[in-house]
Amino acid sequence: MTEATTDQRLVKGARSRAVIARHAADVASVEGLAGVSIGRLAGDLGISKSGIATLFKTKEALQLAAIRAGREVFVEQIITPSLREPRGSARVRALIDRWLAYITDPVFPGGCFRATVLAEFDSRPGPVRDAVAGDHDDWMEFLAAEIRKAQEMGELAERDAEALAFEIDAIVGAANIARQLGDEARVATARQIVDRLLE
Amino acid sequence: MTEATTDQRLVKGARSRAVIARHAADVASVEGLAGVSIGRLAGDLGISKSGIATLFKTKEALQLAAIRAGREVFVEQIITPSLREPRGSARVRALIDRWLAYITDPVFPGGCFRATVLAEFDSRPGPVRDAVAGDHDDWMEFLAAEIRKAQEMGELAERDAEALAFEIDAIVGAANIARQLGDEARVATARQIVDRLLE
Repeated sequence: MTEATTDQRLVKGARSRAVIARHAADVASVEGLAGVSIGRLAGDLGISKSGIATLFKTKEALQLAAIRAGREVFVEQIITPSLREPRGSARVRALIDRWLAYITDPVFPGGCFRATVLAEFDSRPGPVRDAVAGDHDDWMEFLAAEIRKAQEMGELAERDAEALAFEIDAIVGAANIARQLGDEARVATARQIVDRLLE
Repeated sequence: MTEATTDQRLVKGARSRAVIARHAADVASVEGLAGVSIGRLAGDLGISKSGIATLFKTKEALQLAAIRAGREVFVEQIITPSLREPRGSARVRALIDRWLAYITDPVFPGGCFRATVLAEFDSRPGPVRDAVAGDHDDWMEFLAAEIRKAQEMGELAERDAEALAFEIDAIVGAANIARQLGDEARVATARQIVDRLLE
């Protein structure tokens, strides 16, 4: 096997992995990670079960890959574009607006991927829970740090930044469920509450 | 078959149904309703699969019975005892305190049953989603009505009662996840936020 062939195979393998993991995240947003099985994904994507099994080995490895894919989408949709805004209240506002848009006009068919998976695995110790809880903690810490910068610049009222991040996360999480249930009145209520918290 | 025998069978059938449904709610609080299968419950409870199938027919019927069992526990633990308090802020406070206690010292092994199932089924139209969304709406309407009574008595600040119920529900839901993840700091934060909302 030449070096070029090996490279090509690696690239193809990585591309397939990414496609499969991204679809796994779509499925999990609707049905939870319980719905992410090798057989299910093989059927949906028209790939052989053995092909998926070669790339991911176990259902758990596939679930962990789905969590990483979900995280990448979140970073790409919310964090990266908001970092173009100047630090301070403009950036906090951009983060929250993009986060709400990601809930109300969802990228994943089942709405927020992380919310579904966190509720599904919060009571089940193991690598899946650790991965999704770690991802959630990273986001909370990032948001709290941006809130703190805005407070230091005098652009946001002084209060515990972690508590404010927790409170906004709770409201956005409830808005996600309301949106999935088609309850637009509660989504509007959530927006008003978040606006009040950022005043 | 005498009438007495029929009655006895009905009573035994009802008792078995209640035991099975209650266990289904325990399982669902940890693993979601995806974990509630006739085979799984038969194994856990040492009952034959055909016995459970005779009582419940389908997995969906079993899931709906679990939702009713979860609702009964919630009413029994939170609503019934709080109704002994005089209407007004004392009753609202009792409802919220019992609700928080139900989260921090959970009756179900996986914490709040409704929170798990709502996140699991919010994107999947059908009788299970309708049942759990209806149960959630009933609770929100009940809580908002009690908040309104307290406001009319001048014991709670005037603001939209539905919005306040939504906000408290969001915070308690986030506290439930934090508790299941063993994050006591966030549970304490949730308590402080709820106290502030009820001031």
